[in-house]
Amino acid sequence: MLALPRAVVIDRMVETELAVVTNLDPKRHEAPLPQAPSTPAPSTPLDALADLVADDLLAVNELIVQRMHSSVEMIPRLASYIVSAGGKRLRPLLTLASARLCRYTGDRHLGLAAAVEFIHTATLLHDDVVDESNLRRGLASANAVFGNKSSVLVGDFLFSRAFLLMVETGSLEVLRILSQASVVIAEGEVLQLQTTNDTNTTEESYLEVICAKTAALFAAACRSSAVVAGRPEAEAAALDDYGMNLGIAFQLVDDVLDYSALQARLGKTVGDDFREGKITLPVVLAFRRGSEEERVFWRRVLEDTEQTEGDLDHAIRLMTQHRALRDTMDRARQYGTLARNALSGFDDSPEKRILLEIIDFVIDREY
Amino acid sequence: MLALPRAVVIDRMVETELAVVTNLDPKRHEAPLPQAPSTPAPSTPLDALADLVADDLLAVNELIVQRMHSSVEMIPRLASYIVSAGGKRLRPLLTLASARLCRYTGDRHLGLAAAVEFIHTATLLHDDVVDESNLRRGLASANAVFGNKSSVLVGDFLFSRAFLLMVETGSLEVLRILSQASVVIAEGEVLQLQTTNDTNTTEESYLEVICAKTAALFAAACRSSAVVAGRPEAEAAALDDYGMNLGIAFQLVDDVLDYSALQARLGKTVGDDFREGKITLPVVLAFRRGSEEERVFWRRVLEDTEQTEGDLDHAIRLMTQHRALRDTMDRARQYGTLARNALSGFDDSPEKRILLEIIDFVIDREY
Repeated sequence: MLALPRAVVIDRMVETELAVVTNLDPKRHEAPLPQAPSTPAPSTPLDALADLVADDLLAVNELIVQRMHSSVEMIPRLASYIVSAGGKRLRPLLTLASARLCRYTGDRHLGLAAAVEFIHTATLLHDDVVDESNLRRGLASANAVFGNKSSVLVGDFLFSRAFLLMVETGSLEVLRILSQASVVIAEGEVLQLQTTNDTNTTEESYLEVICAKTAALFAAACRSSAVVAGRPEAEAAALDDYGMNLGIAFQLVDDVLDYSALQARLGKTVGDDFREGKITLPVVLAFRRGSEEERVFWRRVLEDTEQTEGDLDHAIRLMTQHRALRDTMDRARQYGTLARNALSGFDDSPEKRILLEIIDFVIDREY
Repeated sequence: MLALPRAVVIDRMVETELAVVTNLDPKRHEAPLPQAPSTPAPSTPLDALADLVADDLLAVNELIVQRMHSSVEMIPRLASYIVSAGGKRLRPLLTLASARLCRYTGDRHLGLAAAVEFIHTATLLHDDVVDESNLRRGLASANAVFGNKSSVLVGDFLFSRAFLLMVETGSLEVLRILSQASVVIAEGEVLQLQTTNDTNTTEESYLEVICAKTAALFAAACRSSAVVAGRPEAEAAALDDYGMNLGIAFQLVDDVLDYSALQARLGKTVGDDFREGKITLPVVLAFRRGSEEERVFWRRVLEDTEQTEGDLDHAIRLMTQHRALRDTMDRARQYGTLARNALSGFDDSPEKRILLEIIDFVIDREY
């Protein structure tokens, strides 16, 4: 299992110097993006990054469409359902930006970016697989439309195609990094399965899960870019660090947004995690800080998943009361700071400025 | 999708010269195995092969146990449930024997053999994933014990570990071969999903499915052994040919055994394919050769899967009456001949003799 080098236990962090760095806003707009005068201002740093690497992104999108192809007609149909649903291409964009940050001028980062997106898509498809009990609750996902088995097999197809794309980079080291990340992702998903419905889940376990299931791929994507660019280990490690901490922040915010009052941000319904009994940091904090009566509530709704109308609202009230959502956001900002620090060794460049802006964007997407 | 270089349409083959080669028995015992005098005679060629490569096999088994390990406790538990259930280690044995046939003296074939077994195990776990409708029929498999989702994720773990093992062989070509095989396997599994319950499935589609879902991994395992041994393409292609044709024969026989009167051979319950509505060659032949009344029967039991007691027996009677099982066995023998021919360029050796015996063993395991 992944060690937790940067995933410090959170309630301990409240007392550390890291905890005071909770607002990165003042720096957010320090580096205006270079733009053609006639282009309207991009609305997010991701749009700005997509503009900056527009040619590369186009090539990656073409590669994605091309390598999703199969003579077995159901494969591209199901794959495009989920690949286009993904939409924002966060991981390929980070891959492309990291390669540019390393001043890479070749084209091996294109296949790498497509491979990273395929691995991400495969894990989404496999994450959607449900057991009978879940099906009864009637989830809507790719597997609900196409069936569990198709989702699994098309995930396997994309995963295998990802490895073929990596072979084309000609780098065994890239294959090693992303195979290892894939091992860690699978471990994280199994660990998450084990902590689901378990209100005794600790912060450590939760952090282990999100480092593995989410942040490991961010880290591997950024590190691999330095490898295809032929950069020294120090740069690869710095980009790994950036990706890992950004990924942790990203998942923390995702887990907060699932309890957000503003519905349907990210195309996500509020309360998905709650309905599944997934134990995320807001739950861990609210449970630990709650009264015995409140714990009875948490056990009923999350362990037994006996939920009635009003339970989600009550859960959000308890989280608010115990500052569980705000503290989770603070933690996300702390990891954001670590991500920011990781890039300190790189010279200023448009890519670096955008990679820094993305940290704040990832964190502040609701607030 | 995999082209079908050697998978000729079968009913056409009845009229060809290949169809007359239906009995390889006379040659089966021409090459007695070298044995220590005190050792009792091995009962099958697989046992003989396991004896011949005993040290390698021990090392592979140790590697398998070691690389199944994870700090996430459920992973080795579920993985060992299925890896040890596999038992006969056919694919790793073929990998080891192929490397020896190529006079390879290094140790990179050990990781390769373990990787091949992990890929096979991952596909078994993913093949066991079922949809709600199947769960209602109550299948017993790893996923019935551990749940769909665990089976998928542990499959992903093993698949990823397989790629890490391949990285350790240091050969991008091995990674290319086995990534490509994994793509083809996934395509074959999806195609099989599409042909399930479809009595209009043709022989071509059926052959495409079994080439992809079964034979591609046999072929890739044998070819990769030549690659790690640094042998020229002609030898790699010959071993690919051997593996592909052996794999087709293996699956044809498997599909016959599912309708065999001798129950529970291979630890398999008779009638599994029938209950799932899987369209195998015995069904294709019996359906095509049957009367309109018989086709009504086949559609009811396989398309609508409305089955009552006695239906399986009736299906076997119809297959026997139309020679569907015997002709499928004849086809298996034809592919066996192609596998035998593929090795003609290799000098005589204990490994070659056993690889030839394995062809007959695979075909004659029931008769």
